[in-house]
Amino acid sequence: MPFFTLTATDGDARIGTLHTPHGDVPTPAFMSVATQGSVKALDSSDLQNIGANIVLANTYHLYLRPGVDIVEDLGGLHGFMQWHGATLTDSGGFQGFSLEHLRKITEDAIIFRSHIDGSEHTFSPEAAIQHQEKIGADIIMPLDICAPADSDFDAVDSAVDKTNRWLLRCVEAHTRTDQRLFGIVQGGLFPELRRKSAEFITGVGFPGYSIGGLSVGEPKQAMYDTVNSQRRCCCLICLRSHPDGYMFDCVLPTRIARNGSLFVKTGRLNITAAFNKRKYAPIEEDCDCYTCRTFSAAYVHHLFRAKELLAYRLATIHNLRFILRLMEEMRAAIAAGEFAEYRREFHSRFTPPDEQTRRDQKQKWLASFGRA
Amino acid sequence: MPFFTLTATDGDARIGTLHTPHGDVPTPAFMSVATQGSVKALDSSDLQNIGANIVLANTYHLYLRPGVDIVEDLGGLHGFMQWHGATLTDSGGFQGFSLEHLRKITEDAIIFRSHIDGSEHTFSPEAAIQHQEKIGADIIMPLDICAPADSDFDAVDSAVDKTNRWLLRCVEAHTRTDQRLFGIVQGGLFPELRRKSAEFITGVGFPGYSIGGLSVGEPKQAMYDTVNSQRRCCCLICLRSHPDGYMFDCVLPTRIARNGSLFVKTGRLNITAAFNKRKYAPIEEDCDCYTCRTFSAAYVHHLFRAKELLAYRLATIHNLRFILRLMEEMRAAIAAGEFAEYRREFHSRFTPPDEQTRRDQKQKWLASFGRA
Repeated sequence: MPFFTLTATDGDARIGTLHTPHGDVPTPAFMSVATQGSVKALDSSDLQNIGANIVLANTYHLYLRPGVDIVEDLGGLHGFMQWHGATLTDSGGFQGFSLEHLRKITEDAIIFRSHIDGSEHTFSPEAAIQHQEKIGADIIMPLDICAPADSDFDAVDSAVDKTNRWLLRCVEAHTRTDQRLFGIVQGGLFPELRRKSAEFITGVGFPGYSIGGLSVGEPKQAMYDTVNSQRRCCCLICLRSHPDGYMFDCVLPTRIARNGSLFVKTGRLNITAAFNKRKYAPIEEDCDCYTCRTFSAAYVHHLFRAKELLAYRLATIHNLRFILRLMEEMRAAIAAGEFAEYRREFHSRFTPPDEQTRRDQKQKWLASFGRA
Repeated sequence: MPFFTLTATDGDARIGTLHTPHGDVPTPAFMSVATQGSVKALDSSDLQNIGANIVLANTYHLYLRPGVDIVEDLGGLHGFMQWHGATLTDSGGFQGFSLEHLRKITEDAIIFRSHIDGSEHTFSPEAAIQHQEKIGADIIMPLDICAPADSDFDAVDSAVDKTNRWLLRCVEAHTRTDQRLFGIVQGGLFPELRRKSAEFITGVGFPGYSIGGLSVGEPKQAMYDTVNSQRRCCCLICLRSHPDGYMFDCVLPTRIARNGSLFVKTGRLNITAAFNKRKYAPIEEDCDCYTCRTFSAAYVHHLFRAKELLAYRLATIHNLRFILRLMEEMRAAIAAGEFAEYRREFHSRFTPPDEQTRRDQKQKWLASFGRA
């Protein structure tokens, strides 16, 4: 069976299926992030109940803690977190950007100082693959260089070249045939470099392609334009995206949930706001998530106000289910040839947070890098 | 049907059943505490899966937040937290002790300053009952006065007298026939006053009796002696007990769980200790809790080290299941006439934490009063 089966197209939109050793993943898909082997506040049975098919973990974080040998001994990421669906690991390349103050990049590798204890760790392309083979996700990523948004043409060009050299070393180092190594397109905001990167990577040939080097400080529109220009070569997009990337950001739904910001049809609801104190209906009347089927908005409001730990779990369940349902609806709309209509309908009712809110979130996000 | 059915006795031990509008509660029972309407880190479906039959909430806390009217509007405590088993509320009398710096006691009432916003609130015996009728638990408590352990005879005697006067006002104020109002025996460490209190309260006659005024700073042995001397009049014991009370404390299993201290056959295990890093077996091999049936000790260790929220839920599930299973085993032993043997066996393998650990915990507990 091929790794990816295309089921239907509707204009530029398409639906399909990724076939992994741990089940099929219908696309377009949303991947919840389990950075350290846990989608924050949830366990694997929660994820299954929400309808998740795939989760994403981080090599850099699992390498530092608990260590990839321990994850391997426990049966890899699947056994470690007892998640039996599909998995993907990021290589550590993104931490080469986000932990900029804790790393240097040589010709050979990214050298990190641990954000936990300051110890030094060398991530060569080969090491990044070996760690990921121990973690054992179904889809793994090559080690790449993520140039900051303000890099000039030559710097990005040189990052693309080095990423390409590293990519060949990753391909060489990759031995597990049950794991799919993806390519990652780099090239910043320079269409010429994006093209150069894409041509090189598709020339090598991979079962799937990610778009990298975005959401690293560039304006939102530039990010959208770049994604747009590359969408035909990629079956998974926005793996790494900050809150401006909005709907597909892997951490956004869970992180804002823990702050009490909950997705509803019309946008976001602040559950901690006083007007929810006596909202005896669910957070959203016809939401099919466990939280809404079981509890009143007033109860969730109370849990947040009282700082009860349960608040974070119930809010996370709601937000993830919202996003996964959105994916389901999008796939159904594409299958029915009604995607343009669905999209119009969605945007006509859903008001994203204003720019100030986004900017505040982004600041928080950037400030969190030292600890992330 | 009577409220309490006695099933079997074995020496002084006995088993029975409390019949409540929300199901039967086999005794001896452990009540998990849902102070603010949530057993910390769990939801009601977790509680059900653990095998809980009854939970305990706090009138003072729910009165302040979210307010008893809101709890009532949502169908009482049962609807509020969507817990369909039996419930009990404490009256606020214990906060009259534990929030000593935030209250004064008059002839008529306990007057609290809110620990949240400093506002003043009067808990008269009548108000305590009215609030509890709105909260709607199956078992409710009269407002009582909990004298500190170092009180002299006259002070405790006077507290008993006032508690007795208040008790009659509570009986008078209590209108809901679907709720059982219990008596609470006071009298500190003075056997004579305990007797006086018990005689008065049993003279009035209640469907059940609690032992109050203990775990308020007295030596552990004095507490045990007092409980011992009163055990025949009580079907529920140690409703209010601090960590020295140990096995039956309503908050202990959940609080220590969140600190990574987990019950096992031999005592307590510190899951955060380094030797658990590679413990690939469950926390306890033959434990039937969800955590042990699903995850390795190494995973739970990792979650604690990585400060993942899931850690607190998994640890709480384990500790509560341990205690509820202990209750099940005790009941089975009593039914089989083998309680003395079971007790010997338990104590031969289970080593409680040493005195220093207990003292440290007690200090933490006392320090937390301002916030509790």
